[in-house]
Amino acid sequence: MSIIAAPLKDETALGLKEAREPSSRVMRFGADEPLHLDAGATLSPFEIAYETYGELNADKSNAIYVCHALTGDQHVASRHPVTGKPGWWSSIIGPGKPVDTNRFFVVCANVIGSCMGSTGPASIDPASGRPYALDLPVLTIPDMVRAQAMLIDRLGIDQLFAVIGGSMGGMQALQWAVAYPERVFSVLPVATGARHSSQNIAFHEVGRQAVMADPEWRGGRYIEAGTRPHKGLAVARMAAHVTYLSEAALHRKFGRNLQDRDRFGFGFEADFQIESYLRHQGTTFVDRFDANAYLYLTRAMDYFDIAAEHGGRLAEAFRGTQSRFCLVSFSSDWLFPTAESRAVVHALNAVAASVSFVEIATDKGHDAFLLDEPEFFAAMDGFIRSAAKARGLK
Amino acid sequence: MSIIAAPLKDETALGLKEAREPSSRVMRFGADEPLHLDAGATLSPFEIAYETYGELNADKSNAIYVCHALTGDQHVASRHPVTGKPGWWSSIIGPGKPVDTNRFFVVCANVIGSCMGSTGPASIDPASGRPYALDLPVLTIPDMVRAQAMLIDRLGIDQLFAVIGGSMGGMQALQWAVAYPERVFSVLPVATGARHSSQNIAFHEVGRQAVMADPEWRGGRYIEAGTRPHKGLAVARMAAHVTYLSEAALHRKFGRNLQDRDRFGFGFEADFQIESYLRHQGTTFVDRFDANAYLYLTRAMDYFDIAAEHGGRLAEAFRGTQSRFCLVSFSSDWLFPTAESRAVVHALNAVAASVSFVEIATDKGHDAFLLDEPEFFAAMDGFIRSAAKARGLK
Repeated sequence: MSIIAAPLKDETALGLKEAREPSSRVMRFGADEPLHLDAGATLSPFEIAYETYGELNADKSNAIYVCHALTGDQHVASRHPVTGKPGWWSSIIGPGKPVDTNRFFVVCANVIGSCMGSTGPASIDPASGRPYALDLPVLTIPDMVRAQAMLIDRLGIDQLFAVIGGSMGGMQALQWAVAYPERVFSVLPVATGARHSSQNIAFHEVGRQAVMADPEWRGGRYIEAGTRPHKGLAVARMAAHVTYLSEAALHRKFGRNLQDRDRFGFGFEADFQIESYLRHQGTTFVDRFDANAYLYLTRAMDYFDIAAEHGGRLAEAFRGTQSRFCLVSFSSDWLFPTAESRAVVHALNAVAASVSFVEIATDKGHDAFLLDEPEFFAAMDGFIRSAAKARGLK
Repeated sequence: MSIIAAPLKDETALGLKEAREPSSRVMRFGADEPLHLDAGATLSPFEIAYETYGELNADKSNAIYVCHALTGDQHVASRHPVTGKPGWWSSIIGPGKPVDTNRFFVVCANVIGSCMGSTGPASIDPASGRPYALDLPVLTIPDMVRAQAMLIDRLGIDQLFAVIGGSMGGMQALQWAVAYPERVFSVLPVATGARHSSQNIAFHEVGRQAVMADPEWRGGRYIEAGTRPHKGLAVARMAAHVTYLSEAALHRKFGRNLQDRDRFGFGFEADFQIESYLRHQGTTFVDRFDANAYLYLTRAMDYFDIAAEHGGRLAEAFRGTQSRFCLVSFSSDWLFPTAESRAVVHALNAVAASVSFVEIATDKGHDAFLLDEPEFFAAMDGFIRSAAKARGLK
């Protein structure tokens, strides 16, 4: 009987590469610059780990801020220090690519609450001298973006040429447009929505319960206990991963194909290729991600609802915006279906904002925003070129 | 911090009402009547717990066999002995109802591999004197139906007037039609398919891993250890439950409504009503279901693929059938979407079988087959009346 725990490495090694080793540049905000949180508390001091690509021009008008998704990080266009894999959007960002680093200065920071160098639940709480764990206040998407604006201030940038992000990154892009309309010339929210749906909250809750059901979670204090809730986090990742794909893509890639066999094993090993694939997704994830960070970031997504702050009227959130918007959805994405993007487009239309919208036909589901989708790349390239021209960028 | 384990009762009470208390009639099959399993082994002795409603007529032509779904049982039209709730299809089955027990003799048995009195992984293995746990051979839908046919033999019934079932029960109904075409006058597979899709296998695998990740699962030997993998099973149930609903139904029922609060709690308690609902689904399930049975029955569904036994040609499985079919799907069911029922209808058409098909417009998702759906009841009523007339039943 092989269960997901079996392939884990030596438990004493714990798998998780500690996030606090500085693999990126880190911006530190001291006691004089607290981050004010929606929960009512302040976070201070705090740190933001970030990467940049390309050069900031003389008038600081060519900066593009990239917001990462739930389990992403700042290594958007450079090798990941833990997995060794290329940056998660290196197909889009780089010299000569749609986000051309020969033209633009690209900034991507690990969101607060995460685990790749920015302050999160695994960071040391100065009040106690031990990891925050659940003593870190619950964070929101607006909190993340507020921290990003402080980073941009430090970098001396008044206005971003563009904010781009997919999924949770798209939520941040929308939040930038709402919270700092004068600071974003253009906004590209991809595969996202203005609020998290009931179904999405439900799947996140399943994942959180899987983590918290693992006795090694220890009320969140696993780091001090020298352990990790690997099994629970792997189950959470597996459940989430199914929602990132489409039924059609699963059928095409795996169907009912069996694993190394031409007949059923009549046991509980991974008989089907899809089972083996999911187990792999679960076991590799725990090596690079912190379980409490997973709780915090899923919670931030669940809380996200732009309209709620504006009496339920989404259009009000965008009133007066001068930014140019380009929304992208993927036809087989059932986590953030096209209707969610359309709702944003309608709200932007209602306030006469400049908005483009494209639904990319694909069977790859929500994951499509991270995959090779030439039509998506072309749409992004076209929008950015046009916006750059309008902004007077060379 | 309340996690799903918190509301559980005294751990020494274990919650699970032992299935082996005879709450139903039980048919026993001794060493002379082994059940031959697809895995190659035999199961012997074995027991089938069943309920009946109505009276068998003189020529034994009015019997309707009802097949239950994954977590259902034989209490289809009578109070559940553990939960105290009405039978799971008491809206459909009873005096004057679409399956009218004044006219028909209704039989419903707990499937083998389950935990409500039929032989399953919690039963005592005569070879060891302890519960089978994972020593029980992995079972299939055809195995279940083979056992049902032995029960029907014992009841002296040559031909069933109808076989009816939804979801996993629909798989069994289809299997009856394929394995015993001369023994089923009519077949009503509801919200089902001729095989389990890759996506469905994926969700089942998540559930199984959640169970097996619970240290209290203990390699399946939790009963002897005096414990139960309640947390893992609750997570599995929560994940599955999301797939039984539709996005629209979740939005209508719960939306982003908060639980007993007019603002966020900024913690990991159940803030949203959907979270509280899911936790309740998880915690109540573990009181009535055995974790190993969950592994076995999900595996049986995953293995199900009628066409595979016929060179991939589904129509071949039904060639020569004289049964009358009525397939029902629900428009918002994404676990067994209408296309799965249509594939069966096309196969039946290809062999010139008698087949009706209705897609019920509803936003209730897969769960619709268990809920009040007047159009569904009317379709079933009409089909049964017509089939009864053709069969010459009064």
